[in-house]
Amino acid sequence: MARNKHPEETINLILDVSFRLFMEKGYEQTSIQDIIDHLGGLSRGAIYHHFKSKEEILEAATDRMTAESNRMLADIRDRRDLTGKEKLRRIFRESVNRPVQNDIFLAAPGFHKNPKLFFSLVHDTVAEVSVSYIQPIIEQGIADGTIRTEYPKQLAELIMLAANVWMNPMAFNSTAEESGRKFMVFRQMLESFGLDIVDDEMRARIVELAAIYQTKQ
Amino acid sequence: MARNKHPEETINLILDVSFRLFMEKGYEQTSIQDIIDHLGGLSRGAIYHHFKSKEEILEAATDRMTAESNRMLADIRDRRDLTGKEKLRRIFRESVNRPVQNDIFLAAPGFHKNPKLFFSLVHDTVAEVSVSYIQPIIEQGIADGTIRTEYPKQLAELIMLAANVWMNPMAFNSTAEESGRKFMVFRQMLESFGLDIVDDEMRARIVELAAIYQTKQ
Repeated sequence: MARNKHPEETINLILDVSFRLFMEKGYEQTSIQDIIDHLGGLSRGAIYHHFKSKEEILEAATDRMTAESNRMLADIRDRRDLTGKEKLRRIFRESVNRPVQNDIFLAAPGFHKNPKLFFSLVHDTVAEVSVSYIQPIIEQGIADGTIRTEYPKQLAELIMLAANVWMNPMAFNSTAEESGRKFMVFRQMLESFGLDIVDDEMRARIVELAAIYQTKQ
Repeated sequence: MARNKHPEETINLILDVSFRLFMEKGYEQTSIQDIIDHLGGLSRGAIYHHFKSKEEILEAATDRMTAESNRMLADIRDRRDLTGKEKLRRIFRESVNRPVQNDIFLAAPGFHKNPKLFFSLVHDTVAEVSVSYIQPIIEQGIADGTIRTEYPKQLAELIMLAANVWMNPMAFNSTAEESGRKFMVFRQMLESFGLDIVDDEMRARIVELAAIYQTKQ
């Protein structure tokens, strides 16, 4: 494959191929050479022109997925036909149901063994997702009477840390059974804020994702 | 100072002096040479005999404090005159009121900038504190009727992640005001599990600790 004039396309191709390999073989078992072998004529130099290391490829692939997820969050946040509470319900349902989640959970390296990835998950959750998407929705929910709290920023942080980090099997290496039990505690916590927004269907899906993840551990 | 026959004493002396310097000057601003200068005749070699780096000294000093805190947790866990709920209340009060907390909050390096320290705080909270101390107390509380949950392990984890990590100004660089607001959300969460165990006095103390921490940032 010749180097093309559009670096965007080359980058996306590298990320597509790498992500599929991380998925099939696992991150640790995939070498830069494996990635090269699956990129037709692309040279080692062309890869290193865009990425300094395998870890950087993983970060870029993760960022690309985060960007997709953030678009979903922004779309729901900006709707005018839903209350604050309905938006939160929609976000949780969409988050667990996205089919790409299956791939992510199959591909994911153990966050629970990698301080840097774990730290960036927490940072992204608190500094990006909570502030930019969840807090404005909770503020709307306070105004429209569907959410009970005087502390929208802090409630957004606690809910998202619980959902994105603690309940994330990749972050804590939870078994399917533990994930189901975490979900029940999370549900009880949400209800104390008037948030009856998660249901048994979501629980089943979270248990399923944890089971998918555990097959690779 | 001559090297003594009791390495324990040498180690404790190094940790005492280092911790005081980290406190007075800040961790980043303290060099190994500063530590040597305050250890009388102790040689550089004697320090390096026990610790490979400044970071290792910090870890050992932190472990020593964790050990003290774990003794407090074990003492309360093993009492026979308190219900499960009373034990949790006692633990929260003792944890925030220990005078050494002022020193810790003055000395602490920014966990929020250090993935490794942050990760070990989370790991210690979930794998040690929750499992060894809080879960057995919640199980007692279920048996004696003072705590309502079917999920003692998961509730222990969520409470301790919220208390030890999220509400810890060292981990999230919270201001005094934010800490007070986090506390209010935490209190509402606890109450949904029947845990009316924190009060305004604890809130004031947490705000005070956050303010102490912020003077060093």
